Amino acid sequence: MMPTISINDTQRLQLQPLEIPSRLLLGPGPSNAHPAVLQAMNTSPVGHLDPAFLALMDEIQSLLRYVWQTENPLTIAVSGTGSAAMEATIANATEPGDVVLIGVAGYFGHRLVDMAGRYGADVRTINKPWGQVFTLDELRTAVETHRPTILALVHAETSTGARQPLEGVGELCREFGTLLLVDTVTSLGGVPIFLDAWGVDLAYSCSQKGLGCSPGASPFTMSPRAVEKLQQRSTKVANWYLDMSLLSKYWGKERTYHHTAPINLYYGLREALRLVAEEGLANCWQRHQKNVEYLWEGLEDLGLSMHVEREYRLPTLTTVRIPAGVDGKAIAQQLLNEYNIEIGGGLGELAGQVWRVGLMGFNSRQESVDQLLAALRLVLPK
Amino acid sequence: MMPTISINDTQRLQLQPLEIPSRLLLGPGPSNAHPAVLQAMNTSPVGHLDPAFLALMDEIQSLLRYVWQTENPLTIAVSGTGSAAMEATIANATEPGDVVLIGVAGYFGHRLVDMAGRYGADVRTINKPWGQVFTLDELRTAVETHRPTILALVHAETSTGARQPLEGVGELCREFGTLLLVDTVTSLGGVPIFLDAWGVDLAYSCSQKGLGCSPGASPFTMSPRAVEKLQQRSTKVANWYLDMSLLSKYWGKERTYHHTAPINLYYGLREALRLVAEEGLANCWQRHQKNVEYLWEGLEDLGLSMHVEREYRLPTLTTVRIPAGVDGKAIAQQLLNEYNIEIGGGLGELAGQVWRVGLMGFNSRQESVDQLLAALRLVLPK
Repeated sequence: MMPTISINDTQRLQLQPLEIPSRLLLGPGPSNAHPAVLQAMNTSPVGHLDPAFLALMDEIQSLLRYVWQTENPLTIAVSGTGSAAMEATIANATEPGDVVLIGVAGYFGHRLVDMAGRYGADVRTINKPWGQVFTLDELRTAVETHRPTILALVHAETSTGARQPLEGVGELCREFGTLLLVDTVTSLGGVPIFLDAWGVDLAYSCSQKGLGCSPGASPFTMSPRAVEKLQQRSTKVANWYLDMSLLSKYWGKERTYHHTAPINLYYGLREALRLVAEEGLANCWQRHQKNVEYLWEGLEDLGLSMHVEREYRLPTLTTVRIPAGVDGKAIAQQLLNEYNIEIGGGLGELAGQVWRVGLMGFNSRQESVDQLLAALRLVLPK
Repeated sequence: MMPTISINDTQRLQLQPLEIPSRLLLGPGPSNAHPAVLQAMNTSPVGHLDPAFLALMDEIQSLLRYVWQTENPLTIAVSGTGSAAMEATIANATEPGDVVLIGVAGYFGHRLVDMAGRYGADVRTINKPWGQVFTLDELRTAVETHRPTILALVHAETSTGARQPLEGVGELCREFGTLLLVDTVTSLGGVPIFLDAWGVDLAYSCSQKGLGCSPGASPFTMSPRAVEKLQQRSTKVANWYLDMSLLSKYWGKERTYHHTAPINLYYGLREALRLVAEEGLANCWQRHQKNVEYLWEGLEDLGLSMHVEREYRLPTLTTVRIPAGVDGKAIAQQLLNEYNIEIGGGLGELAGQVWRVGLMGFNSRQESVDQLLAALRLVLPK
């Protein structure tokens, strides 16, 4: 059975084992995974229908409900990064022609617009300059105008560092029979979230920010109201991999095979969630808040200012204005090359105007801030 | 900024660190990852735009081309498991109304039918009993009849253990202007494959079988002919996460941010591919063939027989007929619970009729076979 075609060795690189520099990741994500998470991932995989693995899936479901403060039965991890979980909310909740109203005040609002369009939604937007947030009155006017099937908001806009308040939005949506979809990629684990109390129907997140895990297995949740809409669809979900009507049978009692899960990432996610539960949500949120305030103070001492108004600043991600005359990109490269510290640059409207500094999960520590401030002191022009 | 809503601790499980039994995974996948792969994954993540990570992506691309024997520039790893890579081929190559002809002789042929339908394809099928393969003449008749835009075949049908010969199929497709799409999930790394010599235009695979990695980062490739069709689309790819017109700009020279990659899995994949390149493809294929023949011999000595005709049997996955009167499920459970060995059961047409035994990647070793045969000798009825 051995082939007669000869093997082409052009692309056969001869490589040494992996050598990767040790970075302190203070950009918009990923952040450094907790060492215990990496340790858990270094466990030999079992099968995706192994009783030991099914028990672990149940634990992940409970702990995701805890960190999101929801009792939604359909709360799972999607087998992809945060963008896959984002697409899962859109794919499952949207049918062609549905009016989807999206709050756009940054890069990830725009991405929701792109995604919803691909699923045939009649997309409407409300817009704000990058770094600002919507008031409840503005949202009410928009919902009254567009009467959307879904209102999609970004709780923590990773491109701007702004926190969209959600109090009252769920009630507004219920008044108009609208489902509320929320991006919590940069808030879960680091910013107070109460999905059920706030009346959120669909939410997604990632593993590599506030939860301190490695990227690739991403939180997803759907309220019973949203599940009802899924069950009443007249068309199949236009995405097989992310179809919750199939996935819920693997995560639920039926345990019907759908696809092979990223086993080792689930080991890591379970450990990351275990650590958050051990610390306690209140402590975890307070730690993020305390460390970011320490960062802001230090940055102000260096003569820098923040882009977002203090009340709406995220504890997980800060946009710092690049001073006039400073080459922001060069500074970031110097931090990476000389100090092994990663920070991010601005996107879209904020390109060239801000740095993005993340303090998330395991990296939300006083030492991280001290290390960054010390390096900044050396690289910033006097 | 701390919230006034009180935290609900109902779902706050208090867990111990992970304890997972050590299994020998001889089912249809995942198999055990090579220890060096797990070690590589236990490296702190860097950013997805870090120069060190971009260099690693280039290495992955070259080595994927090597194991697939292709020079396709668009050869990448998709940030999900094999099913995501499968969906990526369909999503990128299909526009609504395209005639997609699918060879169905097992579970994964059926899955392709389901997926292609979701992307609006005009799906046609040719069918064979599970465990058989299509002849070139049968394929020619079907292509002449349906004149498809895409012909999709499963090279290694994981549900049946059959290897679909591909010699001549590429020429047939070119004759009719048809793109050839091939599932190599259970063949890559373990079964001779020559994508370019065979004229394959689209292929996908997984990391956790023949490559001996952990699941979650999955090989995908597209020939220049298939890329041309992608570039000429009149509609956006109906899947944002898997859109190659965006992803190729992250994996290509532009390095445009698309989504955060599953960094640690890419560490593992790079190591797994490095090990295959070190061993050499010819050696790797021969090892799989040698060990599976040793397995077949041992199974025959136990009085068992294989489901697939010898010529078309996969070296990576064997379907073994469950003898009359034997409770196949009970035997598999006993192997798992008493001997920590996982084997798979039958799916669909073969449910209850076969066990599925995988010898893939790191697990294709004489010791694996010996361990399984010894356990089977003890649990099979005399």
